Amino acid sequence: MIRVGIIGATGYAGAELVRLLAGHPDICLTVLTSRQYAGVKFDKVYPSMAGMLDLTCEVLDIEKVCKKADLFFLALPHKIPMELAPQFIAKGKRIIDLSADFRFSDVKRYESCYQPHSAQGLLKSSVYGLCEVYFNQIRNANLIGNPGCYPTSVLLPLIPLLKSKLVHPNSLIADSKSGVSGAGRSLSLTAHFCEVNESFKAYKVASHRHAPEMEEVLSRESGADIHITFVPHLVPMTRGMLTTIYTDLARDVRTEDIRDCIGSFYSGCPFVRIVPENRMPNTLNVRGSNFCDIGCKIDRANKRLIVISAIDNLVKGAAGQAVQNMNVMLGMDETKGLMNIPMPL
Amino acid sequence: MIRVGIIGATGYAGAELVRLLAGHPDICLTVLTSRQYAGVKFDKVYPSMAGMLDLTCEVLDIEKVCKKADLFFLALPHKIPMELAPQFIAKGKRIIDLSADFRFSDVKRYESCYQPHSAQGLLKSSVYGLCEVYFNQIRNANLIGNPGCYPTSVLLPLIPLLKSKLVHPNSLIADSKSGVSGAGRSLSLTAHFCEVNESFKAYKVASHRHAPEMEEVLSRESGADIHITFVPHLVPMTRGMLTTIYTDLARDVRTEDIRDCIGSFYSGCPFVRIVPENRMPNTLNVRGSNFCDIGCKIDRANKRLIVISAIDNLVKGAAGQAVQNMNVMLGMDETKGLMNIPMPL
Amino acid sequence: MIRVGIIGATGYAGAELVRLLAGHPDICLTVLTSRQYAGVKFDKVYPSMAGMLDLTCEVLDIEKVCKKADLFFLALPHKIPMELAPQFIAKGKRIIDLSADFRFSDVKRYESCYQPHSAQGLLKSSVYGLCEVYFNQIRNANLIGNPGCYPTSVLLPLIPLLKSKLVHPNSLIADSKSGVSGAGRSLSLTAHFCEVNESFKAYKVASHRHAPEMEEVLSRESGADIHITFVPHLVPMTRGMLTTIYTDLARDVRTEDIRDCIGSFYSGCPFVRIVPENRMPNTLNVRGSNFCDIGCKIDRANKRLIVISAIDNLVKGAAGQAVQNMNVMLGMDETKGLMNIPMPL
Amino acid sequence: MIRVGIIGATGYAGAELVRLLAGHPDICLTVLTSRQYAGVKFDKVYPSMAGMLDLTCEVLDIEKVCKKADLFFLALPHKIPMELAPQFIAKGKRIIDLSADFRFSDVKRYESCYQPHSAQGLLKSSVYGLCEVYFNQIRNANLIGNPGCYPTSVLLPLIPLLKSKLVHPNSLIADSKSGVSGAGRSLSLTAHFCEVNESFKAYKVASHRHAPEMEEVLSRESGADIHITFVPHLVPMTRGMLTTIYTDLARDVRTEDIRDCIGSFYSGCPFVRIVPENRMPNTLNVRGSNFCDIGCKIDRANKRLIVISAIDNLVKGAAGQAVQNMNVMLGMDETKGLMNIPMPL
Repeated sequence: MIRVGIIGATGYAGAELVRLLAGHPDICLTVLTSRQYAGVKFDKVYPSMAGMLDLTCEVLDIEKVCKKADLFFLALPHKIPMELAPQFIAKGKRIIDLSADFRFSDVKRYESCYQPHSAQGLLKSSVYGLCEVYFNQIRNANLIGNPGCYPTSVLLPLIPLLKSKLVHPNSLIADSKSGVSGAGRSLSLTAHFCEVNESFKAYKVASHRHAPEMEEVLSRESGADIHITFVPHLVPMTRGMLTTIYTDLARDVRTEDIRDCIGSFYSGCPFVRIVPENRMPNTLNVRGSNFCDIGCKIDRANKRLIVISAIDNLVKGAAGQAVQNMNVMLGMDETKGLMNIPMPL
Repeated sequence: MIRVGIIGATGYAGAELVRLLAGHPDICLTVLTSRQYAGVKFDKVYPSMAGMLDLTCEVLDIEKVCKKADLFFLALPHKIPMELAPQFIAKGKRIIDLSADFRFSDVKRYESCYQPHSAQGLLKSSVYGLCEVYFNQIRNANLIGNPGCYPTSVLLPLIPLLKSKLVHPNSLIADSKSGVSGAGRSLSLTAHFCEVNESFKAYKVASHRHAPEMEEVLSRESGADIHITFVPHLVPMTRGMLTTIYTDLARDVRTEDIRDCIGSFYSGCPFVRIVPENRMPNTLNVRGSNFCDIGCKIDRANKRLIVISAIDNLVKGAAGQAVQNMNVMLGMDETKGLMNIPMPL
Repeated sequence: MIRVGIIGATGYAGAELVRLLAGHPDICLTVLTSRQYAGVKFDKVYPSMAGMLDLTCEVLDIEKVCKKADLFFLALPHKIPMELAPQFIAKGKRIIDLSADFRFSDVKRYESCYQPHSAQGLLKSSVYGLCEVYFNQIRNANLIGNPGCYPTSVLLPLIPLLKSKLVHPNSLIADSKSGVSGAGRSLSLTAHFCEVNESFKAYKVASHRHAPEMEEVLSRESGADIHITFVPHLVPMTRGMLTTIYTDLARDVRTEDIRDCIGSFYSGCPFVRIVPENRMPNTLNVRGSNFCDIGCKIDRANKRLIVISAIDNLVKGAAGQAVQNMNVMLGMDETKGLMNIPMPL
Repeated sequence: MIRVGIIGATGYAGAELVRLLAGHPDICLTVLTSRQYAGVKFDKVYPSMAGMLDLTCEVLDIEKVCKKADLFFLALPHKIPMELAPQFIAKGKRIIDLSADFRFSDVKRYESCYQPHSAQGLLKSSVYGLCEVYFNQIRNANLIGNPGCYPTSVLLPLIPLLKSKLVHPNSLIADSKSGVSGAGRSLSLTAHFCEVNESFKAYKVASHRHAPEMEEVLSRESGADIHITFVPHLVPMTRGMLTTIYTDLARDVRTEDIRDCIGSFYSGCPFVRIVPENRMPNTLNVRGSNFCDIGCKIDRANKRLIVISAIDNLVKGAAGQAVQNMNVMLGMDETKGLMNIPMPL
């Protein structure tokens, strides 16, 4: 049985990885690291797991953890993974990195919005972990750059539409709304209860670092040089992300054609659900699951298409997609450990 | 002192009118009607007001209430106001209607999204109560169609930009997010706590009745035939509305020019606040107040403008704007009764 | 494989049963009934389950459903189960009833707070489904009265303390706080978003029907005639229940003794967790799981004991406990289908 | 016109003081200090107040601020006020301190739960600012210890009952529930959105520092040596506090007698509202106002009384009560600046 470790297990994405991997039938979770909680039992940090998990957080000692696991998830702030990944790779370990460090092919694009990249050599072999699109590359990869939450919600609906030339590539607008867990467990006024509760706001308007990530992938897939207008917003709820995409139709098509285009592109993809025609995605319906729900509507008077996607930012937007990547890398069924039925409310 | 009545006082907009009018220094609130709570003291329906207000709800008897008040607010579902308003007008009363019944000049537009209009004769003299734009007409009006909440949040930022031809009139997209109080006090699964809490969704995508209302006003003000793409969303919070507008720039301008355009158009308008350059509106900052906060940002790569507005849907989006209209109609300072300092959180 | 049906599958407890039973490895869910959604696929009512479940709601036809399943959960308002249960029992089916109809031994007590009981003959053989206490009776039962949510949170901590005579039986106070899902999916102003959100209140103070249920069980287990002071409150959250119990100590003991008493009583009970000494239960830690977390503290100056329990009202307080009962009745491991690791947040 | 200053204006209690004092008709707010935001306009810190207030935060320089104001509110963490107050008093200024530093007469009690007291000389002349009880002393005071939020919610209902000997002084239990704003604006995991949202827990069980504060006042008023069992809980909402008190009846009385006892004790007190018999207090009904709502119910079987109080923790529990104290000290109507009608939802 494959032994798996999580580097940075006590942040929100890390804890969600623990949840999914501890319940995974075909792997064995053996390593949890945490700087802040080294030496502390994981279920003291997250008491919900008491009685279900018997693992203690340890400091990261690469020699040591490499003896205990074969594949590692890095759930750390960007910049640290590009220092750690080469060391793990050198020891023959496979890596799924949840930060932005290995999501870009174009190092300049990365450096323009993050910082200088110290492991550029690995960028060539790293694979962007959007399983529905890069399945074959992921199977053989040793290093995955797990997609950002916003990019996941934007790319899944847009890639089929751009590839089939149903929409104008220079007319892309994504208005995203995210639950607060996306901001992580680090303290900040932005995530302080009384500042978020009963409030709604946009932030990093047309300046969020996830936009270049989207643009690189969209450009590669469409063959055009894509610029997207991207505005994220913060919703007073813990989990969930909804993205409303606006784009001009390139041809006179029916809603049905749009649904068919996306649906057939993702036929065989267990985690993409096209919602029925008279409905629209709701984050509540994907809470706790790895699904991406997609719905669409044509605004006929403006020849404009509206596509809406919903994901759980911590699952399909982070930990769930990472586990899906692991499943693919290990040649297992993509859905392993990811099909627990979510709470209806 | 002017005596004022509220027809339909126990819905959420009605109750908010009670709050504002009971605290208004220069009018006297004398009539509250409610079908459901006739005979019940208002502070039994809304116990927060116990000890601050001594009024009892009564059934609507037009003869009777007209003896007790000079000006009436109608806070009722559409269709009823167009039956009542003519009777009040005939008795020389002034009316501020919070429904859609008197918001349209073009009866066909109204009928295409509501139902046949039974008081078309009044549409000519009724005035659209967007005080910042129709101040002079409102001063002399006997019948006001108080703007919808979504239209208020869309029209205030867009009118100056369209009038000054800074943006392309055929490129308008409004992505709006509203608190749940907009759905009113009537029971529905949509507003049932467990269905809304921890959820986020779009609804009536490109098919909400507030879009034709926006289009009539935008067309009139711009001189063009405007179609807007409008998608409303529901936020798990009680109050607040944020609208993110996307539009193509018609000229190569700076953010500063956009801010100046809107700012100078509303100079002298006490309720429009242009937020400082490095900030964006947040619904928490307008909670309980009649302000409309506006911010903007240019997405240079796409020559696209993003304008964001925030209002309290029950205040500037309903009851507060109605009181502002009353102030203007009565020749009082526009801000009377509307300048209580809101709670900081 | 045992075939299982849910009568009343679209309320909140019913839907939670669907979640747990559809994920149960050793039973087969074959019947879902719903008056309101007859003929509708279950995943149209709860779209979160799309792609995970292929069952359609049907009207209840006892002949028909009895051909398709061997054991039934009744998730219906009280009074209906006492009419249905005899029919199912007559056909040799086993029943787990989530209403109050079969929780009482003393029919007068039931009738004093509900209504006349039409199936009194069944009360003798029905078993109160508190697995941690009535395990052996449940194993052989054909009819289970699944405990109420509040009683579960009160009985689990109190029974060991009363049995060991550590506390005065005439000094029992339970101050409970419940999430809104306890009010169910039926529309009411009480569960209307804007009336509950950002609010906190007590209801049915010292007059809730769960108190007599607690009193019957506590009296039986302690041998005394117990009266408990019980005050439930409503918390603006979807799931979770926390009960704070106050009682006078009968002897001069240490906190450790209290913890030992409860802990040893429930040794071997997988769903009762005594929280570590320096902690207290939090509903977030049991959200989505079947655990009951218990903590305690002695108020030395008053010789008073404070015991706090937390459960998920829909799981250990309803559907999860019902599935636990089924597991026991069927001779399976008590935890089957109930050990999915819950979300950390 | 009296000039007033706030020392520590940017915390939540400070900001709420700003709201109330800026809207107060008979005083002039002239000084706001803030260490963190010195030099910043207040409406940059709390943008809701933009356009309503033109004051800039300054560092605390006692010489300087004393030239600008006659009365100061100290909204600072305990320990700092006992260092500052003597300096203000020496300059002839009147002080209302919102911390615990001047709430105790018994310095030992204070020191047992806070730290050594460096201004013990002032404790004799300082007055506990519970206006409904210490009105006459407050009128002549130069130094007010403004009551804690929990004590306010406990003392107002209990004092009349103890004084009239209707309840047993050794049977007092207070189960309190507070909104998150009580934890202040300082960052902590406890107030981090995802840790609080959708959660409910007790904290500092029978060990909160507000209990000794209650005990000192209750002992003084009742003439007995009172020990109260006090357990606070955290509610996932911004504002509001509800306390459920349990106590044994000393005599065989009716609910009506209890209501009369409390009602007559507070006759003439504008901020205490006894709720109608068939109702119970709800925090939503006091949100934003200075009211304390009180309701009661007798649990006849146990001869136990349940009294429930609701306040807004930031208003009657902090800033509102402080302004009420100021009004009394200045010989103004107690309600000045405190009677804005609160939002109905």
